[in-house]
Amino acid sequence: LAVRIDAAGNLVARLPGTAANLPPIVIGSHVDSVTDGGNYDGPVGSFAAIEVARSLREQGRRLQHPLEVVVWQNEEGGTIGSKLAIGELTAADLDRRARSGFTLREGLARIGGDVTRLGEVVRRPGSIAAYVELHIEQGGILERQSRQIGVVEGIVGLRWLEVTVTGMANHAGATPMDQRQDALLAAARFTVAVNEIIRAEPGRQVATVGRIDAKPNTSNVIAGGVTLTVDLRDLDAAKLARLADRIERAGTEIGHASGTTFTFAKLVDSAPAPATPALMAHIEAAAGALGASTLRMPSGAGHDAQELARIGPMAMIFVPSVGGVSHSPKEFSRPEDIARGLDVLLNTVVRIDQSR
Amino acid sequence: LAVRIDAAGNLVARLPGTAANLPPIVIGSHVDSVTDGGNYDGPVGSFAAIEVARSLREQGRRLQHPLEVVVWQNEEGGTIGSKLAIGELTAADLDRRARSGFTLREGLARIGGDVTRLGEVVRRPGSIAAYVELHIEQGGILERQSRQIGVVEGIVGLRWLEVTVTGMANHAGATPMDQRQDALLAAARFTVAVNEIIRAEPGRQVATVGRIDAKPNTSNVIAGGVTLTVDLRDLDAAKLARLADRIERAGTEIGHASGTTFTFAKLVDSAPAPATPALMAHIEAAAGALGASTLRMPSGAGHDAQELARIGPMAMIFVPSVGGVSHSPKEFSRPEDIARGLDVLLNTVVRIDQSR
Repeated sequence: LAVRIDAAGNLVARLPGTAANLPPIVIGSHVDSVTDGGNYDGPVGSFAAIEVARSLREQGRRLQHPLEVVVWQNEEGGTIGSKLAIGELTAADLDRRARSGFTLREGLARIGGDVTRLGEVVRRPGSIAAYVELHIEQGGILERQSRQIGVVEGIVGLRWLEVTVTGMANHAGATPMDQRQDALLAAARFTVAVNEIIRAEPGRQVATVGRIDAKPNTSNVIAGGVTLTVDLRDLDAAKLARLADRIERAGTEIGHASGTTFTFAKLVDSAPAPATPALMAHIEAAAGALGASTLRMPSGAGHDAQELARIGPMAMIFVPSVGGVSHSPKEFSRPEDIARGLDVLLNTVVRIDQSR
Repeated sequence: LAVRIDAAGNLVARLPGTAANLPPIVIGSHVDSVTDGGNYDGPVGSFAAIEVARSLREQGRRLQHPLEVVVWQNEEGGTIGSKLAIGELTAADLDRRARSGFTLREGLARIGGDVTRLGEVVRRPGSIAAYVELHIEQGGILERQSRQIGVVEGIVGLRWLEVTVTGMANHAGATPMDQRQDALLAAARFTVAVNEIIRAEPGRQVATVGRIDAKPNTSNVIAGGVTLTVDLRDLDAAKLARLADRIERAGTEIGHASGTTFTFAKLVDSAPAPATPALMAHIEAAAGALGASTLRMPSGAGHDAQELARIGPMAMIFVPSVGGVSHSPKEFSRPEDIARGLDVLLNTVVRIDQSR
């Protein structure tokens, strides 16, 4: 493999193909994790992609297409590396300050990228033969249905709203209950309202308030301000827009009723990304040949694959997560399930290579 | 004034009296503040006490009683300095770690106290003639009723509960809504429930959830744990116990319904402290002689005076807070209101001195 860190900070390794001028088959994943995350979300697909390349070499098998193994940088912060690889991020996006205290621009320099050469790494529509990513499911559907391989139908669209609630800090003892502008109480009502809105209709939509920061965050002071996030996901773009609108209206109403003000900023807004049916069929054929059971399913989590889907055929292979636990140190996938997924990935790559 | 920092870290200044063997009249307040607090809560009474001593000297007026001016350390962290002065804290209390990262024991050493000589500073019941503290009201009652001087009837009892909600961290996209153990959602329901419990009956009781910390506190992870505080206050000890019990039961029920666990730790539990009627009468007489209007009122905020009330006669003088704002950088009391309160304090001290 010829290995390099490209200008976008992605780790890219390439195995040449036998045919001239064919676009590459790209496989890979990421190795970053959320705060207090586990060891499987990302690394499973990254190491599996390297192992696919190694297996091909060990078996003396050469593909017609070039094979690219990519470890995308900063997936958990909003699929930053893969967005850069398809030319999706603007200079303003790079000046956004992450929770590390660094801007994306600064972070890019720290991991070996080069912000002045970002244009060189942009992959255009049609420039890849396929992108296939192996990943842990991160839910408990495969386990509950006793299936070994998840064949992803598409990746849900995602909205991250940052909600700022502004009230008035005041003394927790001397301020009567009816004279408060309590930002934390309003934020609590809003958190409950988000849950009620999402559960009020059937479907697989999910929404989470996962981050909350109160000011001054002191026992004996009524909170004057709260910042929190809403993470909203669904496969249907129209439903996503409708629910986001309903959530904003609920915040505004709670603000009116409590003497507080709600403002909303959109941190992330990604469209649902359907997988490519021909690639899904290759995965099912590869799994079938290996005697592995499969299940078609949506991905509730976002992945770098959703970005690559915008420039070429995309598919994802899921392996079971024990207990459906993810984004937690308790995250676990069994070695035999990972090995099976890796075999399916290898055979899928070979089938894609042969299908031209 | 003979000034020293005593073993409890309190700043104590003493003006001798003319009569032999009389216990001191003690006046003072504190100068620490809450996070993002204001400049009046504490300093007004501390500097006023110094000014009372200075005025007596300037006027060549000597009291029969010794006059002690005390600036109590760490009032906002639970009236620590005044508790030490009445022998209320145990060694275990001193090992409690404050939000600064230091234990109270370590903090005491840093401000010039001496944990090995704490016994020397303990004031016994009957060892003071009176304790009188001038303070800003921290609420808007005097302002709304156009009164100049608040004559405190008593200080409310206070409970601080630290509530820990334990759920299960999991992926915000891949975990269906009906399979979550969301600690932040449960904490939000609890925060709303605390408010409903307090407002469900008439009275001046107040409760505040002012501090909340979620883990891992990340947008795309369902919170696995939340710690929050409840600050509960009332003048009636029985009502306080009843409301605290109701709040704990509400948490336990929300836990059962949401697959989370609520645990409760009592950080502070202080009994209501009534003021001494004879001292209240002196304050009203002093105010009346100065042409200042008065209002009897409870103190919703805790004060060092509540500790001193356990060993001798206690009273407090309130001056108006503009807009009722306190524990906020916007906290403000007008210079003329502070000067009036100081005059009332000086004349109250003289009246107490003469009344023996």
